[in-house]
Amino acid sequence: MKALLIIAHGSRKQSSNDEVALLTKAVTSQPSNFDLIEHAFLELTTPKVSDGIDTLIENGATEVIILPYFLAAGLHVVDDLPMLLDSAKKQYPKVTFNLLKHLGAAEQMSNWIIQQTDI
Amino acid sequence: MKALLIIAHGSRKQSSNDEVALLTKAVTSQPSNFDLIEHAFLELTTPKVSDGIDTLIENGATEVIILPYFLAAGLHVVDDLPMLLDSAKKQYPKVTFNLLKHLGAAEQMSNWIIQQTDI
Repeated sequence: MKALLIIAHGSRKQSSNDEVALLTKAVTSQPSNFDLIEHAFLELTTPKVSDGIDTLIENGATEVIILPYFLAAGLHVVDDLPMLLDSAKKQYPKVTFNLLKHLGAAEQMSNWIIQQTDI
Repeated sequence: MKALLIIAHGSRKQSSNDEVALLTKAVTSQPSNFDLIEHAFLELTTPKVSDGIDTLIENGATEVIILPYFLAAGLHVVDDLPMLLDSAKKQYPKVTFNLLKHLGAAEQMSNWIIQQTDI
């Protein structure tokens, strides 16, 4: 079973975390190759990344694709996420993990920006 | 003359700020309705938002569309940007300013996420 974990930074502002939860719901309603989709936060709120991974695997995920929902490759993206991934790989050696580039590095980003400004 | 100002948070990590500059260059190379495109940062680095606005207007912009390059509506998006915009409107009363929703609020975001995970 193929799963997607969307990882956001997390905020002290609850409405900001709610946006991520709603977005995840919207992603779930899109046609995709994923059997399971969850979100998690790097800090300041829950579910934590390890919670998100546990939930997916408890629900049968054998392959977990991780999308860092970040625009910039700051220390979180460059250092923290690979470290969390290493620890997940050790905990679940039979599961395949695949850490994607952060969203801001998407080749289509400049196109998406133009789409968003086409008002 | 219609101008686009892409506003990012700004980072202590220079490579992260460079990403925004490169992205702006990529946006400039896309077909669009903009005569001028610049980027600016809310904090930690330059060009500041007021610098970006000044540059666009010095180069002839009469309409400035502002895109907050943020995924979440935190305090920066909700409080700081409207405040900066008010001050720009006072400084340049003949220029039209239009503050767009932050990128994370784009209706297409769930679709973009699926595109990005389609590996």
